[in-house]
Amino acid sequence: MKITAGGVCAAKGFTASGIHCGIRKNKTKKDLALIYSEVQASAAAVYTTNLVKGAPLTVTKKHLQNGKAQAVICNSGNANTCNANGIEIAEKMSALVSDKLGIPANDVIVASTGVIGQPLDIEPIAGGMDALVSGLGNNSDDTAEGIMTTDTVKKEIALTFEIGGKTCTIGGIAKGSGMIHPNMATMLVFITTDAAISSEMLAKALSSDIKNTFNMVSVDGDTSTNDMVAVMANGMAGNEEITCEGEDFDIFMQALNTVTVHLCRMIAGDGEGATKLLECTVKGAETEAIAKTVAKSVICSSLVKAAMFGSDANWGRVLCAIGYSGAPVDVNKVDVSFVSAAGEILVCKDGAGVEFSEEKAKEILLEKEIGIAVSLNAGEADAVAWGCDLTYDYVRINGDYRT
Amino acid sequence: MKITAGGVCAAKGFTASGIHCGIRKNKTKKDLALIYSEVQASAAAVYTTNLVKGAPLTVTKKHLQNGKAQAVICNSGNANTCNANGIEIAEKMSALVSDKLGIPANDVIVASTGVIGQPLDIEPIAGGMDALVSGLGNNSDDTAEGIMTTDTVKKEIALTFEIGGKTCTIGGIAKGSGMIHPNMATMLVFITTDAAISSEMLAKALSSDIKNTFNMVSVDGDTSTNDMVAVMANGMAGNEEITCEGEDFDIFMQALNTVTVHLCRMIAGDGEGATKLLECTVKGAETEAIAKTVAKSVICSSLVKAAMFGSDANWGRVLCAIGYSGAPVDVNKVDVSFVSAAGEILVCKDGAGVEFSEEKAKEILLEKEIGIAVSLNAGEADAVAWGCDLTYDYVRINGDYRT
Repeated sequence: MKITAGGVCAAKGFTASGIHCGIRKNKTKKDLALIYSEVQASAAAVYTTNLVKGAPLTVTKKHLQNGKAQAVICNSGNANTCNANGIEIAEKMSALVSDKLGIPANDVIVASTGVIGQPLDIEPIAGGMDALVSGLGNNSDDTAEGIMTTDTVKKEIALTFEIGGKTCTIGGIAKGSGMIHPNMATMLVFITTDAAISSEMLAKALSSDIKNTFNMVSVDGDTSTNDMVAVMANGMAGNEEITCEGEDFDIFMQALNTVTVHLCRMIAGDGEGATKLLECTVKGAETEAIAKTVAKSVICSSLVKAAMFGSDANWGRVLCAIGYSGAPVDVNKVDVSFVSAAGEILVCKDGAGVEFSEEKAKEILLEKEIGIAVSLNAGEADAVAWGCDLTYDYVRINGDYRT
Repeated sequence: MKITAGGVCAAKGFTASGIHCGIRKNKTKKDLALIYSEVQASAAAVYTTNLVKGAPLTVTKKHLQNGKAQAVICNSGNANTCNANGIEIAEKMSALVSDKLGIPANDVIVASTGVIGQPLDIEPIAGGMDALVSGLGNNSDDTAEGIMTTDTVKKEIALTFEIGGKTCTIGGIAKGSGMIHPNMATMLVFITTDAAISSEMLAKALSSDIKNTFNMVSVDGDTSTNDMVAVMANGMAGNEEITCEGEDFDIFMQALNTVTVHLCRMIAGDGEGATKLLECTVKGAETEAIAKTVAKSVICSSLVKAAMFGSDANWGRVLCAIGYSGAPVDVNKVDVSFVSAAGEILVCKDGAGVEFSEEKAKEILLEKEIGIAVSLNAGEADAVAWGCDLTYDYVRINGDYRT
C-alpha cells in the first residue's frame, strides 16, 4: 500500500472540478464541486442519523437504490436543509449534471453543506454548470476546496494497492469542520476507486468501516443534518470483481480504512478553531462497545478539550469523562497516560494520581497531536476516537457563523 | 409562598459559617463551610451517577443511611476525589465536626469540590475548626461563598410557606459552575427547612423534584464526580410531621421546587464563562420523556450555545439538536421561537424557516435571559431545561484551571 497524489482523481477514469459559482458572496471561495467517472460505477453511501435530514440526502438515497452512480455534485455555503423546496432544488442539481454529462439523473449523488434553513437558489448553480463541466480534469484540489465550509485545510488522500496482480487506486476528499459528531454516517466524504467490486460488497465494506472511523470522530458533539460518506468504484483497475468476502475484500477493506482513518484525523485536527488533534486510545476493555463508549466520552468532554488547549495535564477530567460515559468500568483499575512526539507520561494508575513531572507533561501537551492513552485493565478489546481541543476560535467561529 | 432573606439560615434552628482555612492559596477566597441544626434533622441526599465518585459522597451516603443529620461540612479548592486516602480524609472531616459540636459523626454530611486527583490535606481544616464553629450564626452569605469554585455569584434563596397553620421556612445554597450536567443528582446544593417531615417523605420529595430541576441543567455536558444535593428538615416550625402524601406534602414539594428551580437558574446563568441564561421550553410532546430529551439536547448543543453568545438567531442549529436528540419527533411539525424581555419572535414553523426581522431577533437575543420555545405539536407533555451560552471565557477558565 503506497500513498500517491491526485486525491479523488487518482483512480483511473475519475476527473473532478471545483469553481466559485456565486452561492457564496466571497468570490475567492469555491462553492461548487463535481466528481465524474468515465464509466458507471458501483456506489454506496451512508447518511446522518439526524431526524432532520438535508434534502440532498433524500434524493441521493433514492438515486443509489440500484447501487450505481457516475457523478457527484456538491455545493458549499448552503445546506439546502429545512427548506420547503429542498427536494426540488436537489433534483434540479441532478438534472443539470445529467444534461451536461449525458448520464441518467439517478446516477448522480447530490450533496450540500452550509447554513441550514435558507432557500438555495438554483440560478448560480445552473449558471456555473458549463464552467464546472469544462473544468473536469485532474483537479482534486479544487474539488476539495469547493466542498469546504469553515475548514482551514483541504482534506484529501490517495493510495495504491494490489488485488490479484492488478494495481488499484483509491482516493478521497472530505470536509469538516463543525457540527461534527457523526453517528452511523458523517460529514461529507467522497471516495473514488478503480477497484472492481460489486455494489453489495462496496456497501458492506463502507458500513463496516465507518463504525471504527467516522463514527469515532467528534468536534463538538453536534450530529449534522447533512452528513454523507459516498464511495464510487468504477472497476477500471481491471481486477476480478470482488463479489464476496475473502482475501481481495480484506485488501480492499484495508485500503479503504487507510483512506478513512487519514480523513478522520484530518477532520478532527481541523475541527473548528482547533489547535490540536486529540486521539484517545482505549485498551484492555471487556468489549469493543465499552472501549468505544469510553474513547468517545473522553474526546467529547468540553473540559478535557479545554484542558488540552491549555496544555494542562488535568487527568482528573479524563477520569471524570470515563466515569460518566455510561460504560460499566471499574474505575479503580484505570490507568491514563498522555503521549505525543515529545514523549509519554503516566499520570494516573489504578484510578488515582501518580507523581509526575508537570514540566515534562507540559512539553508533551504542547505538541500538535496528543494521544490520551487509557488502559481499563479488564479485557482485550480496544478502540480509538479522534477529536480536537476547545478553543477561543471555536467560540468566535460559531458565535457569528451566519454573518 | 413568600421570598425571604437568610438563605440556608432562614429556617428556625439553623446557623452557618464560612471561612478561609488555607486549602486555597488565595487568602481572600473562603474555602470551608459549615451548616448546623440545633436539633437532629430528617435528612436526604442524592448523588452523582458518575462511576468516579468523590470520597465524601461515599462517607455521606453511609452517614445518611438512618435518614438523620445535624451538620454539613464542605470545602472548596479540592474535590477529594481519586485520592488513595480520600475516605480517610472525609471521615476525619466528620470527626472534627463531631468533636467540636458534640454530635455523632454519622450525623455529619461531608462534601468537597475543586480539583480532582490531588490529595487533600486535613491540617488546614483541623486548624480552621475553632474559627469555623465560633463563626456559626446568621451567615448564609459566607457559607455560600465557602463552597464556590469558579462561581462568580453566591447562589442562595429562602422562602416561607404555611403547613397546617404553621409558618415554615425553606432555604438553600448552591455552587456551580463547570462540570455541570447532572444526572440523578447534581453539583453541590444544601437545603435547610424547619418543616417537620419524615426522612422517607423527605427523600421522596427530593428524588421526585430533581428530575425536573437539577437533572435538567447543563453547563458543559460533563457530569461531575462530586455532585450532591442534601436537604435537612429539623421540624422546628412545629407543623404536624408529614409522613405521607397529601396536601401538606404537596405544599412542601411546591416550596422545595421553588427553591430548586431558583438555584437551577442561578447555576445555569452563572455557568463558567456564561453571559446568558438559556431556558429551553418544549411543549406539545407526546410524552414527558420526549420533551425532556429534546429540551436537554437543545441546551447542550455547543453550536446553539455559541450562537446565543453571538446573539445570532441561527435556529437551524436548534432544529439540528432536536433531530439528533434521539427522541422520536416529527421534525416537519416543529415550531421554534426566541423569547426574552425584549419580545418574542417565531423563526421556524413546521420544520422550515419563516421570514422574520433579523433586527428584532438580535434585539431579543441581546438580553441576559433567553427563552428557546419549541413546540412539537404532537401531544400535551412539556419540559424545561436550563443552560448557558458558550463563550471565550469558558475556554479561558478551563484551558488553565489548575494553575
